[in-house]
Amino acid sequence: MQHGSRVRPPAAEPNEILYGLRSGLAVFQRRRADIRRIAFQSSVRSEIQELLGWAAGANVPCREESDKELASRSQSSQHEGLVLDVKPRRWLPPKELAAWLVATQGTAVALDRVRNPQNIGAIVRSAAFFGVGAAILGTPAPHPGLPPFALRVAEGGAEHMQFTRTTDLADTLSRLKASRICIIGADSHSAVDPVNLLPRFPAVLVLGNEREGLNPRIKAECDVLVGIAGSGAIESLNVGVAAGVLLAELWRQRARGGVTPPAAPRS
Amino acid sequence: MQHGSRVRPPAAEPNEILYGLRSGLAVFQRRRADIRRIAFQSSVRSEIQELLGWAAGANVPCREESDKELASRSQSSQHEGLVLDVKPRRWLPPKELAAWLVATQGTAVALDRVRNPQNIGAIVRSAAFFGVGAAILGTPAPHPGLPPFALRVAEGGAEHMQFTRTTDLADTLSRLKASRICIIGADSHSAVDPVNLLPRFPAVLVLGNEREGLNPRIKAECDVLVGIAGSGAIESLNVGVAAGVLLAELWRQRARGGVTPPAAPRS
Repeated sequence: MQHGSRVRPPAAEPNEILYGLRSGLAVFQRRRADIRRIAFQSSVRSEIQELLGWAAGANVPCREESDKELASRSQSSQHEGLVLDVKPRRWLPPKELAAWLVATQGTAVALDRVRNPQNIGAIVRSAAFFGVGAAILGTPAPHPGLPPFALRVAEGGAEHMQFTRTTDLADTLSRLKASRICIIGADSHSAVDPVNLLPRFPAVLVLGNEREGLNPRIKAECDVLVGIAGSGAIESLNVGVAAGVLLAELWRQRARGGVTPPAAPRS
Repeated sequence: MQHGSRVRPPAAEPNEILYGLRSGLAVFQRRRADIRRIAFQSSVRSEIQELLGWAAGANVPCREESDKELASRSQSSQHEGLVLDVKPRRWLPPKELAAWLVATQGTAVALDRVRNPQNIGAIVRSAAFFGVGAAILGTPAPHPGLPPFALRVAEGGAEHMQFTRTTDLADTLSRLKASRICIIGADSHSAVDPVNLLPRFPAVLVLGNEREGLNPRIKAECDVLVGIAGSGAIESLNVGVAAGVLLAELWRQRARGGVTPPAAPRS
């Protein structure tokens, strides 16, 4: 028996809601110990058989639900028949990110007020596809999270990366630069073709807001600004597409340099 | 006075609904004679001043409306304060497309059951950005149209291109091939890197369904299949991003070959 004073339990941490078949299965592959609850539609049973078998053994609550219940649980019609309650992912402190980038000669992406979850998700998916291990989400306070729809659109890519968040991206980039990390800004007005870039690693590729592009304070921190040349018919590419084109090029140049891209940092 | 019999007027053609600030302004720049009605929110007045001035002179009905009215008119919350009723665009018959491609040594994209309007729009935007003059929309009957949301996402790119539609894309590609047009298929399983492609023009880049990729009948019509190499963490890129990466490469190789990309065919 405890003598009088009680130890107060820590406030229950809210869960991260995660939906979508591939993003859910990626959590199962990469961090299954974080799964706290599974809700699914009968139609996907065969595709999540291994997950269900594991859940039974691990005593993780598991419930078959209707499309409507899953839509309400995920607040989205795009749940694809699978909704997980997951332990929230750990945000990597900027210092740890810098150390990882330097140790591995790695690559990260940084988002300067990219707002549309569709774009955030597409960038995360492409980043994972091209071996980028980390993303920095920058936006004025309140702190940005990863919107559940972005995780769904990322198709599991988020489970191959670590995430850092900052309310002052310019300051964070300045600190990374001090660790000799190369800061590359995507700027549709730049005449520097990514093909001629020859970046040095570690590197961070910074992508700007859908309408405004990079903030001037962010631009000032960039070692180089790169722009994708086009026909001029349309002012710019979608930011998710531009990220893909630039990450493809970084990946190629990395391969050409003979550097093997490092695996993502683990928390 | 007409003697007895009356000439029946042709059935009124339904309008194409088009919304979004940039897509609307692109219609104004590229085919203003097609604009039949303008609805806008007061907040965008300064951005569409020229359009409004023209409409007054051309006697085109023009109405300031609330956000709610515009949302109802466009059936979308993403109208950005501008909704146009526009004369439906002309679909380019496949034969005319072939003739244009051959005459100009041009490039087209073809969509094999790409379903998500977000992806269709992103592909059209990237295609216009990289000087691609035409798109072939393929899907089983009923005939596909261009969803209004795709036009909004394309940010005006659709007004720089011509569109062809077909219920049998394999057959259409086979006919284009017979005109010595190079058919390039995007296939995530192919080990042919787009950088090593050295395509010949005229060319058509074919992109497949979000889940299934290219249909086997379509693959069989391709002169070459190209795949984008990645880390292996994620199975594939989003089809809109993959299109961007491949179109960027075709654009570069075209520039390297010294061929100036042709302007889009006009109807």
